[in-house]
Amino acid sequence: MFVVPEHMIAGLLTAEDAFAAVEAVFAAMATLDAYNFPVVREALGEGRQYGFKSGLDRAGGALGVKAGGYFPGNAARGVINHQSTVFLFDPESGILQAAVGGNLLTALRTAAASAVSIDRLARKDARVLGMVGAGHQAVFQLRAAAKVRQFERVIAWNYHPEMLPQLATVAEELGLPFEAVPLERMVEADVIITITSAPEFSLASAHVSVGTHLACMGTDTIGKQEVDPQILARAAVFTDEVAQSLTLGEAQHAAAAGLISAGDITPLGAVITGAAQGRTSDAQITLFDGTGVGLQDIAVAAKTVELARARGLALEVAL
Amino acid sequence: MFVVPEHMIAGLLTAEDAFAAVEAVFAAMATLDAYNFPVVREALGEGRQYGFKSGLDRAGGALGVKAGGYFPGNAARGVINHQSTVFLFDPESGILQAAVGGNLLTALRTAAASAVSIDRLARKDARVLGMVGAGHQAVFQLRAAAKVRQFERVIAWNYHPEMLPQLATVAEELGLPFEAVPLERMVEADVIITITSAPEFSLASAHVSVGTHLACMGTDTIGKQEVDPQILARAAVFTDEVAQSLTLGEAQHAAAAGLISAGDITPLGAVITGAAQGRTSDAQITLFDGTGVGLQDIAVAAKTVELARARGLALEVAL
Repeated sequence: MFVVPEHMIAGLLTAEDAFAAVEAVFAAMATLDAYNFPVVREALGEGRQYGFKSGLDRAGGALGVKAGGYFPGNAARGVINHQSTVFLFDPESGILQAAVGGNLLTALRTAAASAVSIDRLARKDARVLGMVGAGHQAVFQLRAAAKVRQFERVIAWNYHPEMLPQLATVAEELGLPFEAVPLERMVEADVIITITSAPEFSLASAHVSVGTHLACMGTDTIGKQEVDPQILARAAVFTDEVAQSLTLGEAQHAAAAGLISAGDITPLGAVITGAAQGRTSDAQITLFDGTGVGLQDIAVAAKTVELARARGLALEVAL
Repeated sequence: MFVVPEHMIAGLLTAEDAFAAVEAVFAAMATLDAYNFPVVREALGEGRQYGFKSGLDRAGGALGVKAGGYFPGNAARGVINHQSTVFLFDPESGILQAAVGGNLLTALRTAAASAVSIDRLARKDARVLGMVGAGHQAVFQLRAAAKVRQFERVIAWNYHPEMLPQLATVAEELGLPFEAVPLERMVEADVIITITSAPEFSLASAHVSVGTHLACMGTDTIGKQEVDPQILARAAVFTDEVAQSLTLGEAQHAAAAGLISAGDITPLGAVITGAAQGRTSDAQITLFDGTGVGLQDIAVAAKTVELARARGLALEVAL
């Protein structure tokens, strides 16, 4: 097997690579050339979570699993709380092909998913990017979004305002004026990315103007919520995987309230392949519910291994 | 992470090590110190199967997953059809600890499970071992069984009789007279191990004498069957995991026929801890439904890594 350690990922996989890999696998999911296996997610006690997200991409020739979890006690020991590794297997023979550090990959593939949704669904003339959330993931989201639209400024809100300066630094790096705002001012945004982890929504329906595209990237578990379910009722809703969107994505709340059902949610992959329509008017609100699927991890890991091998950087270990 | 390649396992893990590891984890399952996560098992097309068996053993301090499957096209390319790898993670931090070749481990942990069942459930004076099945796995079963009872001879049947000589060779190595017999002569056996892969049972109720212990090790999927469901109705039934026994183990057929239900099946781990009774009379038929759980794989892999590290044989790779 080839081993690509965590520290090597940053020098190998660009945001553009992640975008292309995620876009391709979303399209393969829409044509049923790729599918995710059932997700395993278990509480280990003391707040620790562990699980396995796996899938097969026939189009991309990839079979794999991301093993990972959340360990709140790690930070105190100087280790990051999220720990994951992606393993790839030859889909023809089942032989282990690669082990790839999965922490940065997770950030890159999540940012790539929201960027693909902005590229496909936001108005072409979008100029104001709104960020709801300013944690570790928000920085990746901002960088990836800036590549797909000509934004002129960034407005941002975070539950902990003291975290906003790190996002401001990145916006400045990208040449974008940055302003911390109350949630009410999100009405100015043409694109809003929500990347929070909370049990109740922060963004209300009144905070969202007509014509906005929202990428809701923070809800991946039953009980998390980022935006008012009324926004989903107003919007054309898209997602990575419909079943997951309804059960553990942002759509869980609108579905539970009877505001939307499976038939109201379009896989983003179907927009990419042309099988479904994306935005149909400048006034429409579009919303992408990014729940995160194993195939995204597998796709970016496979690309990383390809790059590492091409550059002679992948360590080969006999197993 | 530590890497223990497939070729190294034979020189590291003995049948005795596997027996001790499997016995300990069955006991931990009975006290709820260890539990298996939901099994992922997917058809990939063209007869290929892939899946993930995972679990947490708090008692043994192990968290892991066996990734593996069956690839019928491999043999033609000179690769074995079953391919698996066990990955271990630190249950406290989630950090990847080890990757261990899983093919021989699977054979050893399956043989260990039947041996534990024989040790705990067969009559102490068992003298005749009956083998139903003579494939690759049967050899491991025979070797492990011979360690827990003073057998005097082996009788065996296989659907393909031309495979019996390889089993005969191993019996001779163990100093046990060997005889190929029709199924009807299994009435002579005190212990019967079934290790076949078939859609209909071979061993009928009339082939089983009172007082016999059966270890049914071949059924791990919906639709497979080794023994007449009437045998389960006659027997005290034990298993590794009750839910799995009823859904995809040998008990699936007796349960579907209404002959037994969950309350009739005892976890072998509860016999090991003393929480449940094993055999209660010399005339009783006991039957162990060995379905195979991820915790067995994790337990033998963890022991293998311990041995490899102690002997300086585990390759350490930064990830």
